This record gives sequence, C-alpha cells and structure tokens, in this order.
Amino acid sequence: MTEIVRPTLLVDKEVCERNISRMAAKANALGLKFRPHFKTHQSAKIGEWFKKAGVTAITVSSVHMAEYFAAAGWNDITIAFPLNVLEMNNINQLAGKIKLQVLVENVDAVNVLKEKLLHTIGVWIKIDTGYNRTGIDALAFSETDAVAAAIAGCEKLDFKGFLSHTGQTYQANSIDEILRHHFDALMKLRILKNRYHIRFPDIGISMGDTPAATLCNNFDGVNELRPGNFVFYDLMQQNLGVCQMEDIAVRMVCPVVAKHASRNEVVIHGGAVHFSKDSIRNTDGKKMFGRIIIEKQGKKVLLDTMNYLSALSQEHGILKVAQSQFSQFYVGQLVEILPVHSCLTANLMGHYRTHEGELIEMMPGF
Amino acid sequence: MTEIVRPTLLVDKEVCERNISRMAAKANALGLKFRPHFKTHQSAKIGEWFKKAGVTAITVSSVHMAEYFAAAGWNDITIAFPLNVLEMNNINQLAGKIKLQVLVENVDAVNVLKEKLLHTIGVWIKIDTGYNRTGIDALAFSETDAVAAAIAGCEKLDFKGFLSHTGQTYQANSIDEILRHHFDALMKLRILKNRYHIRFPDIGISMGDTPAATLCNNFDGVNELRPGNFVFYDLMQQNLGVCQMEDIAVRMVCPVVAKHASRNEVVIHGGAVHFSKDSIRNTDGKKMFGRIIIEKQGKKVLLDTMNYLSALSQEHGILKVAQSQFSQFYVGQLVEILPVHSCLTANLMGHYRTHEGELIEMMPGF
Repeated sequence: MTEIVRPTLLVDKEVCERNISRMAAKANALGLKFRPHFKTHQSAKIGEWFKKAGVTAITVSSVHMAEYFAAAGWNDITIAFPLNVLEMNNINQLAGKIKLQVLVENVDAVNVLKEKLLHTIGVWIKIDTGYNRTGIDALAFSETDAVAAAIAGCEKLDFKGFLSHTGQTYQANSIDEILRHHFDALMKLRILKNRYHIRFPDIGISMGDTPAATLCNNFDGVNELRPGNFVFYDLMQQNLGVCQMEDIAVRMVCPVVAKHASRNEVVIHGGAVHFSKDSIRNTDGKKMFGRIIIEKQGKKVLLDTMNYLSALSQEHGILKVAQSQFSQFYVGQLVEILPVHSCLTANLMGHYRTHEGELIEMMPGF
Repeated sequence: MTEIVRPTLLVDKEVCERNISRMAAKANALGLKFRPHFKTHQSAKIGEWFKKAGVTAITVSSVHMAEYFAAAGWNDITIAFPLNVLEMNNINQLAGKIKLQVLVENVDAVNVLKEKLLHTIGVWIKIDTGYNRTGIDALAFSETDAVAAAIAGCEKLDFKGFLSHTGQTYQANSIDEILRHHFDALMKLRILKNRYHIRFPDIGISMGDTPAATLCNNFDGVNELRPGNFVFYDLMQQNLGVCQMEDIAVRMVCPVVAKHASRNEVVIHGGAVHFSKDSIRNTDGKKMFGRIIIEKQGKKVLLDTMNYLSALSQEHGILKVAQSQFSQFYVGQLVEILPVHSCLTANLMGHYRTHEGELIEMMPGF
C-alpha cells in the first residue's frame, strides 16, 4: 500500500481462490462441467488460479479473448457470443489448435460455418430464456428447428445443445426472484433438450449467470455451468444478496486530492476511466459507484452507506461523506473503494496488483 | 472498411484537422493562448496534428498522461487535475525536463510542494465557478487568500492565476444556457483576477470547456483556452447544439451478429468495453448510446433517431431499429456508430484506425 501513488486495482488472491474452489466444488457436487467465464478477470495469471482448482475448460466473450487464452495454454474454449461471421479466419486458426465451441442463433451464421470451416468445432444454439438481449426465444421452435437442421447439415459442426445466459437475475429485487428466474430458464431449456434429444442424443444444457450459480441448487438436466463474475464478485452482487462483503476480491486504491467542507465531499483521483459508469441505487436513493474503506487506528474499516462514491467524471471521483466521518479524510490519503461492477473496472484498469505487490497482467487491448 | 472484422474506432483525420485549425484560429483571433486538452485523444500521433496547427503547449489530466506526452516531445504541459501529493517524485522528474504547471486548491498541497519541489513549476489555483465538482468556490476569498499566500511563500512556485472548468455547460438545455454559464464563470474569474492582480501582476485566467470554447466569443480578461473534446466532438456535443454531425471525427465500426424481428432489434459486437456507458436522452425519451450509419446503394447514410444504440452489456450492443429499416440490416454487416462520449470511447478502445487503414496508437494503460 505505501508504494501506491496512483489509482490501483488490488486483487486479493486468497479471496479469489476461495471463490473459485467454492464454485468448483459446487459444480462437482451437482455433476456439472465447470467452464468458468474468463471475461471478468481477462488475465492469464488469474487463469492459473483456476487451473489449481482443476479447471480445464473455459468460456470467453470474444474471438480476441479466445486467442489470448489459447496462447496462454487453454485448449478447450467456448466463445459465448453470437458468432461474428467476419472472424472466420481467426476461428479457423483457433480451431486448428484447440477444442473450440461457438454460439449460433441464426441459419445465416451456420451457413457461413458450413462454407468456410476448415476444422470440426462444437456449436451451441444460443437461447433467450427471458433476458431479451439476444438468442432464439426458447419457445420459438420453428427457429430452433431451422438452426438445428442447418447444423445437422454441416459435417464440421458438432451440435452441443442449448446455451443461455439468464442475465435477468442481475435485475432481480430479491433472492426469491433470482430463484424464480433460474427455474423458469431451466424449464425452458429442458423443454428444448427433450424436443431434440432423440435426434441429437448427445446434446446438453449450459447455463451461466453468477447469481443463480451461487444461490441455486436445482440444476436438474443441466450439463455445464459458466459463471464469471463470482471470481471477484462486487457491490452489485452483494447488493443482490448473492455474496457477502468479504467475498469481494477486488478494490480500487485511490488518492484523496481535495476536500469540500461546505458539502461534505472528498475528491479522489479515480474516475470513469478507472471504475466505469455502472452504478447501483444507494440507500439514500441516489446513484452509487462504490463503497469506501479507510484505515482507522491501523485497521481497515468499511464505512456505512452514508459514505459512498457518488459521482464520476473522466478522472475525478466524488465521495459523499457523513459529517461525522469528514475529519477522517485528508489530502494525500489512500482510500479503498469497492467497485459496483468488477468486470468493467478490471477491463478499464488493464492490470492488477496483489496485496503482496505482485503485478498481474491482463489481456492487451483490442 | 473491408478489412475490419472486429469493433474498431475510426478517426477521420481531415475532420480532426478542421476542428483543430478552427479552434486554433479562434483562440488566435481572441488573443488567447491555446492549450488544448489531450485527455480526449491520448495519442502522440494525433498530437502531431496539433503541432501542425502551431500548438506548442498542452493540457493533460494526470501525471501519467504528462509523462506520456513529455516523452513524445511536448515540453509545456499543464496537469489540469488537483495536485496528487503522492506523486511528487514523478512531478519532480517531469519538472526537471519540461515546463510544468500544476493545479492546487488547498494549502495542504502547497505545503507539500514547498517541502518537496526540486525545480520551479507554474501553479494555478483551481476555481469552482459553479460546476461543484472540485476547486475553491469562486467567492470563498478566505480560501483563495490562504492558498495565494502559501504560494507566495514558496519560492519554487510561479503563480499563474485562476483556472476553471465550466463543466456545467455540458448539462445545459439550450445554447443560451451555455452562454449564461460561461458569462457567469467569466465574471467570477475576473473578480478574482482583479482582487489579486496588484499583488501578483502576472496572473491570468484559464478556461476550458468545449461548449463555451466553441460557441462563445466573450473571453474578455481571459488568457488561456483549454478545450479538449472539440478535436473529435460527439453526439453529446451535437445534442447540445455545440457542433454539427459532420464535425464528429470518430465512429465505431461494429459487426452485426444477430437480428430479432419480433422486436426490431439488431445485435452488434460493440458493448460497454468499447463505448463506455455514457448515454444521452433520445427523442423517444429513452437512453441512447449512439446513432447508426449504414451503407445504402454505396452511400453512407445516417439513420434518424428512430434507429439507435439502445443498450450495452459487456460485449453486446442492441440497436433499436425502425420497422422500415429492419430489412437493411444483415448478419455479417458492418455498421458505424457515432458515440455519445468520444473521450471515454477512445480511452476504452486504446487505438484508432484512420480511413486509410493507418493504426494510430494511444497512451498505454495505467
């Protein structure tokens, strides 16, 4: 800490390893293949921590990220993003080296694969179970029929089954709601598996969101679990009731540069280029971008929600601070901020430091 | 364009050079020193385009950025961010090589400078003219008195005057409101300059926001102009009435990966890790993250506001598309998106391509 002079993303290796081994054990106990999503950390080094927990297969969100992790020695990768048909050269190169799986959700993409694939790859049909971001609507059988038929007509495609991201759990207002979303998604995916399993006996179901992966225990009929955020968690997950404060494995260290007594505000170096602009609703109804930890008498203390990161511009962050705490802040102090969305914060920062000062590098930019 | 297969940030050099020369000419006509803010583009190469327009002095937003541009040959740099006293080693190193100016807004920071500075540097007092982000309130004379006295007591500090960022212009609802904010800020800064100019005859006023720098002509008493965003502009500025569509010099090129006919949505590869989550209000009252340009019969066409980038997750972007346009989109197409906030988009992308395919590198990460 004493060597930090600029906004710095700290990662707690011990907490990460605990999060990883807990999720790996759960997947194992439920008989699920564990294929964690690496878009959260984007780091070959942190990938090694997963290997220690027995992980051999991973999920990524772009061809670029697949290339990075393939170069780092991972040889079983699913690109969990609708196939970008413009990247067929890159996909062919990857498929010549590793076991690759892609996602399709329209016949157009399958036709390009049929025309251009040089090696056999696995393919999942991306299903929309209610998040309404992308994927074929789970009950739109005419569409899944057409895509499944197109896949069957392409000899270099190994049909893996139906994959969904139940992202609607992130917007839930209660744990019950998370459980309901998960069960609803599960039912829809089982209907699909049943509809096609006679024709395609080896197909499976792949699910992924961190809230359900953490909280739910009913994965009946599911074959694969792909959570990502759980390695770090963050305030969004803590706010949802998915994790505890002590499960959050990353925090930003930021220097205090100014204080404004007339409005109980403290200015830090730490802005939108460090945190991202994702926010949650604070207890006072306002947007909140992070919670504050300061040192008091040699001990790290998490301040209550009367104290929070309340605004971000490009480089500035504004801490709203309770009157009673204002005197605890001073120019030149390092404060720690728990981020709202660890994935986007890590993506912006580009590297981590461990508590021991070790530099942890990430995937280079696009 | 035909070689682009992934989300790519295109910069139009011709439009940039027009934006630069127009602003340089304005500063020159008004007798203002032009010290553009380089946090928008963060690129040594784009910096060269400013040199061609006669620019010799620049503004940056962090010590890290000052180091990058000093290494690229810039030798007159203002770090327009409240002094981070933890970076005194870096500041001393920079001050030994280039003409450096910093910002202070409290006696604490001046005391650290007094104790640790090895070379003479310029110092501005950061003034809050109503944006309420940071800086000394323009009318809090007891505070400016104290900081000015502390500066006068430090022989390695060359007091430059009062600097403000009238960021409230970005939230204006009309051009009149921008003019009013600017005039109000100008009055406050002139009051300060008058208050101190007998004691400090060489002090000046430095102002900076792109809306006022573009639209206002009254800079009476001002010495320096520091706009940044104007080099690219963006939808936020166009929406404010600050620039025209043809002044926007950057656009993201993104591949279409899926279409959803039941809701007239098109999914692109291009998400929060490419655009940032800054948004403006669209004409339909919803959040808008970008406007869409597609090719029709060989010509680029900007679609109306019935078509827009309506949602972002980490890698996905969702285009809401008018019924009449939906058939114009196809899987494998490249669409162009005008970004809402060019500074944050450029910061995320990490490099540019010109229309001629040239790679334009940016400052490496933190």
